[in-house]
Amino acid sequence: MQISKPSLILDEAIARNNIRKMAEKARKHSLRFKPHFKTHQSAEIGEWFRDEGVSSITVSSVTMAKYFSLSGWNDITIAFPYNPRELTEYDGLAQNCRELNILVENEESLYFIERYQKNKLGAYIKIDTGSKRTGVLSHKIQNIEILVSKIHKSEKIDFKGFLTHAGHTYHASGKEEILKIHNESINQMKVVKEKFGGEVSIGDTPSCSIADDFSGADEIRPGNFVFYDWMQYSLGACSLDDIAVYMLCPVVAKHPERTEIVIYGGAVHFSKDNIKEKGIKIFGRPIELNGSKIGLPVEKSYLKYISQEHGVIKADEEYFKKAKIGGLAAVYPVHSCLTANLMKSYLLESGKKIKMFS
Amino acid sequence: MQISKPSLILDEAIARNNIRKMAEKARKHSLRFKPHFKTHQSAEIGEWFRDEGVSSITVSSVTMAKYFSLSGWNDITIAFPYNPRELTEYDGLAQNCRELNILVENEESLYFIERYQKNKLGAYIKIDTGSKRTGVLSHKIQNIEILVSKIHKSEKIDFKGFLTHAGHTYHASGKEEILKIHNESINQMKVVKEKFGGEVSIGDTPSCSIADDFSGADEIRPGNFVFYDWMQYSLGACSLDDIAVYMLCPVVAKHPERTEIVIYGGAVHFSKDNIKEKGIKIFGRPIELNGSKIGLPVEKSYLKYISQEHGVIKADEEYFKKAKIGGLAAVYPVHSCLTANLMKSYLLESGKKIKMFS
Repeated sequence: MQISKPSLILDEAIARNNIRKMAEKARKHSLRFKPHFKTHQSAEIGEWFRDEGVSSITVSSVTMAKYFSLSGWNDITIAFPYNPRELTEYDGLAQNCRELNILVENEESLYFIERYQKNKLGAYIKIDTGSKRTGVLSHKIQNIEILVSKIHKSEKIDFKGFLTHAGHTYHASGKEEILKIHNESINQMKVVKEKFGGEVSIGDTPSCSIADDFSGADEIRPGNFVFYDWMQYSLGACSLDDIAVYMLCPVVAKHPERTEIVIYGGAVHFSKDNIKEKGIKIFGRPIELNGSKIGLPVEKSYLKYISQEHGVIKADEEYFKKAKIGGLAAVYPVHSCLTANLMKSYLLESGKKIKMFS
Repeated sequence: MQISKPSLILDEAIARNNIRKMAEKARKHSLRFKPHFKTHQSAEIGEWFRDEGVSSITVSSVTMAKYFSLSGWNDITIAFPYNPRELTEYDGLAQNCRELNILVENEESLYFIERYQKNKLGAYIKIDTGSKRTGVLSHKIQNIEILVSKIHKSEKIDFKGFLTHAGHTYHASGKEEILKIHNESINQMKVVKEKFGGEVSIGDTPSCSIADDFSGADEIRPGNFVFYDWMQYSLGACSLDDIAVYMLCPVVAKHPERTEIVIYGGAVHFSKDNIKEKGIKIFGRPIELNGSKIGLPVEKSYLKYISQEHGVIKADEEYFKKAKIGGLAAVYPVHSCLTANLMKSYLLESGKKIKMFS
């Protein structure tokens, strides 16, 4: 592989293993596995899921649903609040899918569906179990009741149940807190389910990776787990061996007075997502490169700063010495979903390029 | 215009005015105007610069240089450290350009050029005047001397002079500090120029927008000024009337208990760049919409949180009341370069779509 520009390397064996493990976990707990495809956004990688028996998927936009529908997926859940401005698109998709599910959390969306939708949709009511992004708060029973009753009355919508994304696990301090959030979240969902029936759909990668008690849930929708990343590793949601992607970036400058290495690889490649480790902002974690094999993360070195195309690695002395201008730096991305979205393609070790939806 | 998805709206008149003003400023100060095209990344918008007499441009990657070279630009400066892994590409470009300039800051790059380059390149030595991203520190006279002397000896390279990007103006507290950084930076460049000759190229949008003393500089390379954004406005580098782009995003949910509005518009649209205002992280600034006309920013409301596709606006009561599910929210991006890079196209008020390089 001749790498001349920032490239996103994907280890197919690791990704397939991540998919297999999550599919097995779902089977073991009698959960429907409805993986979120927003992380990889690729029809070809979608086939790796089909190889593990997956037939229903989750996406985060109508556009993405269209893309995967064209690749033969016909049981799709759009895990994003119903957007009335795309009503024609929902209708077209519903016509082409065996099952198209949407999220409802307000009466306005039901009004638009009732008025304009021709082909039947399935609907989950989006519940907020504490992430405070969006959804009806689980204790707002009256609001939920109104929505459930309107959905039951509608001839345009099948009531599917309740869906949540406990995204606050991403801000947890570690495994223990993730499990606490997971349990609290699932308990809130159980209460709602007992009252109104329907299924319970849960979804975040940290919970799905760590938890071993899913009683009350009917399906899981993790997405990031297919690749994982440095953030998930820091959270304790995966081991190093589970991280399936890394960036390879040309080294273009070295600054001995501050042991910093400049790479071709910036915000338009990694994204500006970052995490704090010991009070330090980290945009990525360098990895040792042993020939073409991937080694261990360089614990004391980190991607410190990124602008549009530049990345600056603060290096420990050993890593600094090894880095060569004209050589490559391997870096785990902090957030693989956003890095993949920017890179738009994957490079396998075989040299094969996998394209993404764009 | 029927907007159903997050869209980047561009006001052509404002952008053209920004270009005209900067071109006039350059003429007034007898500076070559070599605008950075990394912000707009569009051949069509490039033509608006040609209309103002621009004939030499700056880009941030070899790939971008190729794209603009195909649109007839033949005086291109790649303002990024020479990347030895793209040596074939530099050579091909140099063959097709009347003038192709690169940045050199270490002997390794000169080694590769000497060995592999066939067509002549122009080279600026990249000087670090305090931004600490990359470049030779201006006081390292000995290092500079070695590079200058090697370049003079080379038959592959024309010595052009010295180039800096005072990117630390982006972290300034306001106009006064920007001017201080600008003056310090230009003074360092003058010292180097006096010693070694050649031209001085400077570049950041805050300095180029605010400063009125450029003595010692020979050319300016601002990029962001074509659109400006909320960050530049906060820095004092532009007025509200100068911001040429904003996002239009569908409103999909409202949460009265915390006066928050959820929009379809997230990290894959805005980027995760943010600034702090009064201690609060801001990912964008909502704007009043009066019909299709753009109004004033809603001072007390801000884009508080973004995940992959969701954006959460913390709203003041009036803005919250006005927002309608099924309607649109207009938001100034914090950093237009990264937003444009993600959006990949612009929508003009006329409904015309302008594509970007991708």
